[in-house]
Amino acid sequence: MGSNLNKKNIDFDIIENGSITSVPGFYASACHCGLKSSGKPDICIIYSPGGSVCSGIFTTNKFQAASVIITKKQLEKTKNIKAIIVNSGIANACNGKKGHENALETIDIAAHQLDIDKKNILISSTGVIGQQLPMEKIKKGISICSDILSADGGHDAAKAILTTDLVTKETAVKIKTVSGEDIMICGMAKGSGMIEPNMATLLVFITTNVKISGKLLDSLLLEEAEESFNHITVDGCQSTNDMIIVMANSKSNVILDNKAGKYYKEFKNAFSYVMRDLARKIILDGEGATKLIEIKIINVKKKSDAKILAFKVANSNLFKTAMFGQDLNWGRINSALGSAECNFDPDKVNIYIEDVLVVKNGMGVDFNRKYTDKIMKRKEIKFTVDLNSGKEEFNVLTSDLSIDYVKINALYHT
Amino acid sequence: MGSNLNKKNIDFDIIENGSITSVPGFYASACHCGLKSSGKPDICIIYSPGGSVCSGIFTTNKFQAASVIITKKQLEKTKNIKAIIVNSGIANACNGKKGHENALETIDIAAHQLDIDKKNILISSTGVIGQQLPMEKIKKGISICSDILSADGGHDAAKAILTTDLVTKETAVKIKTVSGEDIMICGMAKGSGMIEPNMATLLVFITTNVKISGKLLDSLLLEEAEESFNHITVDGCQSTNDMIIVMANSKSNVILDNKAGKYYKEFKNAFSYVMRDLARKIILDGEGATKLIEIKIINVKKKSDAKILAFKVANSNLFKTAMFGQDLNWGRINSALGSAECNFDPDKVNIYIEDVLVVKNGMGVDFNRKYTDKIMKRKEIKFTVDLNSGKEEFNVLTSDLSIDYVKINALYHT
Repeated sequence: MGSNLNKKNIDFDIIENGSITSVPGFYASACHCGLKSSGKPDICIIYSPGGSVCSGIFTTNKFQAASVIITKKQLEKTKNIKAIIVNSGIANACNGKKGHENALETIDIAAHQLDIDKKNILISSTGVIGQQLPMEKIKKGISICSDILSADGGHDAAKAILTTDLVTKETAVKIKTVSGEDIMICGMAKGSGMIEPNMATLLVFITTNVKISGKLLDSLLLEEAEESFNHITVDGCQSTNDMIIVMANSKSNVILDNKAGKYYKEFKNAFSYVMRDLARKIILDGEGATKLIEIKIINVKKKSDAKILAFKVANSNLFKTAMFGQDLNWGRINSALGSAECNFDPDKVNIYIEDVLVVKNGMGVDFNRKYTDKIMKRKEIKFTVDLNSGKEEFNVLTSDLSIDYVKINALYHT
Repeated sequence: MGSNLNKKNIDFDIIENGSITSVPGFYASACHCGLKSSGKPDICIIYSPGGSVCSGIFTTNKFQAASVIITKKQLEKTKNIKAIIVNSGIANACNGKKGHENALETIDIAAHQLDIDKKNILISSTGVIGQQLPMEKIKKGISICSDILSADGGHDAAKAILTTDLVTKETAVKIKTVSGEDIMICGMAKGSGMIEPNMATLLVFITTNVKISGKLLDSLLLEEAEESFNHITVDGCQSTNDMIIVMANSKSNVILDNKAGKYYKEFKNAFSYVMRDLARKIILDGEGATKLIEIKIINVKKKSDAKILAFKVANSNLFKTAMFGQDLNWGRINSALGSAECNFDPDKVNIYIEDVLVVKNGMGVDFNRKYTDKIMKRKEIKFTVDLNSGKEEFNVLTSDLSIDYVKINALYHT
């Protein structure tokens, strides 16, 4: 995954100001029901009255929120989903039987309000761990949201899923087809702390209007999550709640039969873009982040080693504070690499910031500090670490570690 | 290792205000030669004119400073060491052939100034990576230090090895023997960032007056480092330079023959205390630290799993910022545990802060928030995580992640 998403040679268009309800047949709404003391929106509904084929991937954390456990089970029963209820402010995690019951009750309430079957409803939560959902407020929230569902509600929903995020994160694209009908893929994401790979770290909801089998959608989602969200980290922490859900409502006449079929490749490309763009937006909005930093490890024997090394640097507090201080302290990259649990020859390591060689054969070299000082002031910076010992590579996007990261997380009280 | 070092039933005495030169036969001195812009002491000599049996353990980072490479080689040639030259301010690491040559020249200069053989000299460095040692300044520094070597120089040396440390870290003990002669073990340490296990993270120098074989001293040092310095973390980062060196100068008539011999057990106990006390002092002086936090994982099947879990919590930025915020956010402990790469049953997990149960069977329970709020204000806090599934345990000492940690590391410019 690249920090600079190359849009050359792509056969789709970005929908400016698009949202998940830009896709025909999807409705959404949000309101403040009282979970957040700030008064900001804290509950939303994503609604597909005609139903949609749905795939999901979930946190690998051993402590799993009720929403994760239940939504996984729901998808095992049927992949045909009509509504997702998402609340922010309370994670409804690590709170026992009562938490589980409240999650099930949320589905009951939604089924009643929307007049649909319970089995076609998913739930998702994010926020503080250990608290119980105040069910009267949830009930009120679902009732309000049910009444105001709208084909323009996407942006409202994108706001309602946020916690410590500063901005909404939405990406929308369309692919022109010969029939004149557009394939649309639109997504929204939430997450700015606890961002690490293995799907443990964020909420993402993507809508599309293609007709696709659940199996094919599952495999596509898994593949593209690996190439996008599994390449980012803010703080190396994984959460109990997070999930990526894709809903395909078949509203267009475009049928994606199999990987060799018509439009599959185009769809995959555009889907990949949406996933990677949302992942990138999450890092740009990382808690306290002032920079987006790409660490690319190249010419490694094993890809798994490249991944270990990339994350070792990307999660190094010393490296991340140096980035915040706009200091090209490459010694902290060396230190981080050298302490990773994999084998490489330190004497073969070259390190570049953008196109400037700063470490050759493991040692610092002379370079134009005036020029690199300018680079260090940029909002986006790329480091390349060349191990000169193979052909594999892996890149990670990360943010810096700022004073505001500490403030945000020290003040976010339970 | 405990955060509260239990001194009950121990058969040694703490030497108040002791230093490495409290041990008869050891001399030290320090001065400012110009490596630190602050004008603070930046070079010192530890001197044992009669020679001493010496053991060392070293960073496992793949990028190793010249001082680490050379000191290891020196100890392979002979364990009889008379002097150690330590500089702070410049790490003399990742700077190639010139760096290596400068390190060797440092030994040459010291050999000349102290009029001893090169093979009996070790070197140690700490500071910024990638810079070359200004050899004229080093020469001047060694010359001055050689002239002012003193049996009272220990405290000066303890100051000269510091970088971002706020305070010196020294521990000294003595054991009474039947002959009336005391066994003495005195140490000093440096380190406040880049603190993580595997000896990758700090400088420690310990002096003692027993007569002991190099082999026995090696095995004791390895064993006790595992029980002390390998139980601490400030930021999960490992450095290129760090080492623990013990010098035994045989000045007392106490001979430690073998593990079953007279006084060995007492010596081991006291040595263990010195190591653990220095490790603890490093955490207390962790960069920006406002708290010392012990994470103890108990009743685990495998000790290796207990270690993984303890470090996962101890290195979690979200946990550490919550500690800085004095917020008992146990959800972040759950999250960290759940994302560790080892198997356990989350439904069996109990978590205590001091003696207060806050999580039972993986879920939050009601507890006296007024009382725990008071605990959270303490300087030292202990968390116990009971996995209820075995008999192994592991504890780690860590510090919180504060605004000052970021300031210190963002401003510590190359």
